[in-house]
Amino acid sequence: MRLRSDGPVKAGSLRDGLPSAPQAEELVDILMEGPGMRLERIVSTGQTTNDDEWYDQAWDEFVVLVAGAARLQLEGEEEDRALEAGDWMLLPAHCRHRVTWTQSDPPTVWLAIHYEDSLSRREAEGRSEA
Amino acid sequence: MRLRSDGPVKAGSLRDGLPSAPQAEELVDILMEGPGMRLERIVSTGQTTNDDEWYDQAWDEFVVLVAGAARLQLEGEEEDRALEAGDWMLLPAHCRHRVTWTQSDPPTVWLAIHYEDSLSRREAEGRSEA
Repeated sequence: MRLRSDGPVKAGSLRDGLPSAPQAEELVDILMEGPGMRLERIVSTGQTTNDDEWYDQAWDEFVVLVAGAARLQLEGEEEDRALEAGDWMLLPAHCRHRVTWTQSDPPTVWLAIHYEDSLSRREAEGRSEA
Repeated sequence: MRLRSDGPVKAGSLRDGLPSAPQAEELVDILMEGPGMRLERIVSTGQTTNDDEWYDQAWDEFVVLVAGAARLQLEGEEEDRALEAGDWMLLPAHCRHRVTWTQSDPPTVWLAIHYEDSLSRREAEGRSEA
């Protein structure tokens, strides 16, 4: 049977709506979101980070390559890291990184979890455990 | 090049260490964890929820099938839902569900995000937006 999205349960496939040709921009779909957390499906078709730019985020990011292939550079490392389907990385806050290559056809599909676990958040909650 | 796990960045593959034969229990690896959030890789080799049991969780769960195949039943639905690689579901808190079948060989690999977005958490933070 087919997946259904009626009722309280959202459902789909990470392969839904993949473009059949390279796009001008990455496609980003938010699958789940709440305070301190956002889950995205990102579809890259050749996009990379600009030459002189780094991602430098105040939150942790978990990224997993679902399909396609990519290369990612971490600040301070001489060689890029090659990612293929199933490969994941947990990038702590302020770990500067750049995407240096993405496969365009078939497209590259990522899942990314942005998660902020700040000390201030825990202090505001007045508890020290999860 | 190979992925490396030295330095501040944890990295791996969702296909690392998959069992070559069915196991007595599901294998669960925690890939990321913090207050209100836990990301798990789960490897099923035929395990299902017991006949008279339902999962009934106080938090939201996002689940995506990475490899293999499974069937999942939602309370109130007559037919199971079939999941194949790439299929995801967002199960809101207290959406009762059961796993009725998992492919054992090759094993079934899931990613599951458990996320608690309670009103009390938001109130404690004293803000209404993410």
